[in-house]
Amino acid sequence: MELDSDLRADLVSTAHEVADAASKVTLKHFRKVALTAENKSENDFDPVTEADRAAEAAMREVIHRRRPTDGILGEEFAAAKGQSGLTWVLDPIDGTRGYISGTPTWGTLIAVGPAGGPVLGVIDQPFTGERFIGGLGRAEMIRSNLSQPLVTRPARALSQSILFSTFPEVGEPHERAAFDRLGKQVLLTRFGMDCYAYALLAMGQIDLVVEAGLNSYDIQGPMAVVEAAGGIVTNWTGGPAHQGGQVIAAANRDIHAEAVVALSWKA
Amino acid sequence: MELDSDLRADLVSTAHEVADAASKVTLKHFRKVALTAENKSENDFDPVTEADRAAEAAMREVIHRRRPTDGILGEEFAAAKGQSGLTWVLDPIDGTRGYISGTPTWGTLIAVGPAGGPVLGVIDQPFTGERFIGGLGRAEMIRSNLSQPLVTRPARALSQSILFSTFPEVGEPHERAAFDRLGKQVLLTRFGMDCYAYALLAMGQIDLVVEAGLNSYDIQGPMAVVEAAGGIVTNWTGGPAHQGGQVIAAANRDIHAEAVVALSWKA
Repeated sequence: MELDSDLRADLVSTAHEVADAASKVTLKHFRKVALTAENKSENDFDPVTEADRAAEAAMREVIHRRRPTDGILGEEFAAAKGQSGLTWVLDPIDGTRGYISGTPTWGTLIAVGPAGGPVLGVIDQPFTGERFIGGLGRAEMIRSNLSQPLVTRPARALSQSILFSTFPEVGEPHERAAFDRLGKQVLLTRFGMDCYAYALLAMGQIDLVVEAGLNSYDIQGPMAVVEAAGGIVTNWTGGPAHQGGQVIAAANRDIHAEAVVALSWKA
Repeated sequence: MELDSDLRADLVSTAHEVADAASKVTLKHFRKVALTAENKSENDFDPVTEADRAAEAAMREVIHRRRPTDGILGEEFAAAKGQSGLTWVLDPIDGTRGYISGTPTWGTLIAVGPAGGPVLGVIDQPFTGERFIGGLGRAEMIRSNLSQPLVTRPARALSQSILFSTFPEVGEPHERAAFDRLGKQVLLTRFGMDCYAYALLAMGQIDLVVEAGLNSYDIQGPMAVVEAAGGIVTNWTGGPAHQGGQVIAAANRDIHAEAVVALSWKA
């Protein structure tokens, strides 16, 4: 799909406006006592807040107005098919558990692209004031109107690398076992960062993020940011990750290859 | 120990100056590529950075100048005995693993008090710009020169509560087993926040922080902040926690009692 320069500029500007719209809602409710959380599924605690729904509604309003022929796939409402060939993939609050706990680790995730995967992505953390944007020729973190380039780390030995995942449980038991095998080979494993872990990877602070059980809206924004910064994002066997599932996000080709080997399941 | 109002004001003002001195150093090195980490012990990865040492040196300089007769106990240098009966307990960068990973979860910890425990404490997170200070009649978070009061949560059922700890490993195997028993009874367990978890507790965002293997400089600052906000900080059996070891920090008396019961070891 060919994207001319006017279209590219419009997508970037729309992405910023979508992130701005979400942040007004998310910050209004962040750390407020009245916040309520419901269970989405019976077995798994997955809080959906009023803020989540209101933020996605605000994001959709911007897209409907600015890009009426694009499709929308969001976490909170039904998918909207478009005619342009481009779809926006939205997660208003990635890391709702972090959000309801007051941690500045959640983020608003935005991606846009054709069916094959995102061409532009945003991770926005409005409490710290950091916006990470990658794709269409840019890879930058913007804070207080200052931009700094995003560049992932050069290769280092797996034994010297830093690995992040959201929960120690990671996924199903066999996925956790594979993750733990990888964890034993790295210098440091940390948890609890939600989508902010991908931002740390894009900033060159860490080497690997490994997760399982993701949805497309959990990964498309981070994927575009990490890839624009020089990283690699695939599933655990090296295939495409934009549909979610098991994800490896790596700072470079060498560490990615080592992680794929370490995660390959053995009986 | 009687503290008159001039002394109280001087301790608060000194604590702010100590935090300011540390933040200049910690922010200068935060997320910089040149950061190096050494291993303090052979068995356990515990990075000590140049920033850690330089920050504590800057903190000690302020105390030597402003409060020359007070003692100092810090993580990085030898203890200095004082003559005033008051000792400053310092951790320039609590959460060095978070610090070297770029996460905004580390903090500078400051406490001051007689041998019986801290009367004033600070948790300072200079990247997010949040300073939490508690004791001597105050309990507040200061950000961008605005102060907001710190108040812990009212009681709720253990099954509805949010629990934090730094690592899933928690401590020794029997401590981890006890922690996991508690974890099964709460709504949500999260990891990876370092000292920021105590700030979340003081802000009324979460219900419990449970850790093991702490040093006095890891807990005295957070303890003073949490207690000033209405919370309770003890060891796992309900005794004093200011010397470190196993720690429960709880939002209120009810949840504290439930946590003590859940953590009590059973064969």
